[in-house]
Amino acid sequence: MDARTGLPVVGMVGAGQLARMTQQAAIPLGQSLRVLAVNADDGAALVCADVVLGDHRDLDALRRFATGCDVVTWDHEHVPNEHIRALAADGVVVHPGADALQYAQDKGLMRTRLSELGVPCPRWRRIGSREDLQSFGDEVGWPLVLKAARGGYDGKGVWVVDRPEDAAELLASGTELVGEEKVAIRRELAADVARSPFGQGATWPVVETVQQDGICVEVIAPAPSLPEDVADEAQQLALRIAGELGVTGVLAVELFETTDGRLLVNELAMRPHNSAHWTIEGSRTSQFEQHLRAVLDYPLGSTAPTARWTVMANLLGGPDDVEPKGIDERVHHFMAHFPDVKLHLYGKGMRPGRKVGHVTACGEDLEDLRARTRAAAEYLMNGGEL
Amino acid sequence: MDARTGLPVVGMVGAGQLARMTQQAAIPLGQSLRVLAVNADDGAALVCADVVLGDHRDLDALRRFATGCDVVTWDHEHVPNEHIRALAADGVVVHPGADALQYAQDKGLMRTRLSELGVPCPRWRRIGSREDLQSFGDEVGWPLVLKAARGGYDGKGVWVVDRPEDAAELLASGTELVGEEKVAIRRELAADVARSPFGQGATWPVVETVQQDGICVEVIAPAPSLPEDVADEAQQLALRIAGELGVTGVLAVELFETTDGRLLVNELAMRPHNSAHWTIEGSRTSQFEQHLRAVLDYPLGSTAPTARWTVMANLLGGPDDVEPKGIDERVHHFMAHFPDVKLHLYGKGMRPGRKVGHVTACGEDLEDLRARTRAAAEYLMNGGEL
Repeated sequence: MDARTGLPVVGMVGAGQLARMTQQAAIPLGQSLRVLAVNADDGAALVCADVVLGDHRDLDALRRFATGCDVVTWDHEHVPNEHIRALAADGVVVHPGADALQYAQDKGLMRTRLSELGVPCPRWRRIGSREDLQSFGDEVGWPLVLKAARGGYDGKGVWVVDRPEDAAELLASGTELVGEEKVAIRRELAADVARSPFGQGATWPVVETVQQDGICVEVIAPAPSLPEDVADEAQQLALRIAGELGVTGVLAVELFETTDGRLLVNELAMRPHNSAHWTIEGSRTSQFEQHLRAVLDYPLGSTAPTARWTVMANLLGGPDDVEPKGIDERVHHFMAHFPDVKLHLYGKGMRPGRKVGHVTACGEDLEDLRARTRAAAEYLMNGGEL
Repeated sequence: MDARTGLPVVGMVGAGQLARMTQQAAIPLGQSLRVLAVNADDGAALVCADVVLGDHRDLDALRRFATGCDVVTWDHEHVPNEHIRALAADGVVVHPGADALQYAQDKGLMRTRLSELGVPCPRWRRIGSREDLQSFGDEVGWPLVLKAARGGYDGKGVWVVDRPEDAAELLASGTELVGEEKVAIRRELAADVARSPFGQGATWPVVETVQQDGICVEVIAPAPSLPEDVADEAQQLALRIAGELGVTGVLAVELFETTDGRLLVNELAMRPHNSAHWTIEGSRTSQFEQHLRAVLDYPLGSTAPTARWTVMANLLGGPDDVEPKGIDERVHHFMAHFPDVKLHLYGKGMRPGRKVGHVTACGEDLEDLRARTRAAAEYLMNGGEL
């Protein structure tokens, strides 16, 4: 407990944009997030009072960080699972715990467990050799998808493979791989939920996540024209996974909606997730507040939407030679043109393709919201004329 | 400019709840507020990365603090006006500036200037002696109101006086006083606006501020049953005052609605203000974001309401021996009972009558919102049964 406030202390390992936005949500709860940052200029380290510098792969650093925290949670999946177990063995309260997190850290384990639970997934197989790949491809057809079992994100660690030869180098590298059929999809969806240690669950409306080159560029809440029974099915599925896997905190279930109308689980994330950034403005309780409530074992907040539609567009770093130069100058023009579009900058340096922020707008007219958030994101990153 | 983000640095002098909530609004703008804090455990010092300790009455401390800030603004009115002038003479960009702030710092100057502008005010007079008081009372009637010209807030520095003898001690103390007629009022209102150095203005809906013992306990947005032309008049008046006085940032104009339907200016504050805390959830742009936009001379954000009604109730510290003990325990029960009521705790120790936070709810049913925010505030501060 923080003697100054009479409230528990939440530590988040990792100091990226998720920790940064969690700090924003922590402030009104009377909290101030403690973060473990690799670098002093990580996005969350710039906005938190209590920053510990250290490597999340270093158990000593994790132990030092956890001292004085009432609960420790995660900004990413990269903390070694055995370190999470070691912290728990020390008596540190961790949410989500190692047993749950392993399924977000290892796609092979995730697929195995979901298959056991009868959760609909693309056909999949662990791929250790050219022969495995050939036989899996013969079964599900080409092209197929290969994924690194560990460490991938935002399209990294994912390869679409047309024939076994294309994966020769990858197979030789010793990367642990999972193969998945390349499903014919209508679109991608996400069902984001939260679950507390007490077992309380809460769902947000199912959203559509629009992808480009394997990276989410836009989220529409709720997913347009999604039949109510399919939305219900997705939410129930996400709650069931959260319960069966013992997830505490936010769980994002990325889904494929196939061309023949089935839902298949694509990925799991056990932390606040890009697909729910829209909740900051679009839901009575944001995913960041909800994650804090869940890991603190507080009762969860209302997830009622605040508007008919909410649209979020990611800011993906553009080229260096953008005109007008300088993000500050472009922020001026953005604000003049889009007085109701909300800006979220992550305090990260600009690099082509890097997620450096997002914008959100709420309202009644979906096409207008999409057009304006897209134009705003395009201008902020790539400049030009407005 | 912050080389890490390419964005300007805002410094706020004072580290109370207004700075704390400004930090919350700064994060999505890619900012992190720099604060000048008297104590390391001031509410905003607990949540900001860049905290300078020092006294806001010490020019050296202010100069040290201002170094590296692109703009300096204020959490309160207690910085000596001559120090603000000295900073500006040094080349520091300050918003609002000394010329504007003097009217928020000295009620005599404020009344003089507003009277010159023809702005409707209660009848008033500077009171230096028993004779002044007697003659002013003979003119406006008893009881009347005496206010300390400088340094009062939240009902402090305000006295209702039935006869000259009641003020004997006060007059002897040498406190500079302003007398005001005790106006027969229907209720109190506030017109909150923002103005940028460029001259752009923005208004929020006029609100009703419900007072108890001279302290605001509840704000209703918009003010119920306020005729549209009266609301327009109040907003125009506030924008006019902001322009004439050269205010930059948020200006709160506290108003009396008299029993005969006139609007009179009660007080001015040139900073985010309790009467606009509801904007965090209830407006597309919160007063804290708007204050930042204004002092940065960014274009102002949309002030469109996000709901039909928004109600805010202040959390005023209760007695020590409250059951259940401990704010954390009460927060649990509060969250279970009021999943859609938003909590804002300021990181301040509990003291009877002290503003330690507020709660906000948005919706369609005003009486329901009032009842629930009142019950929530009552329980969080005074415990008991829910």
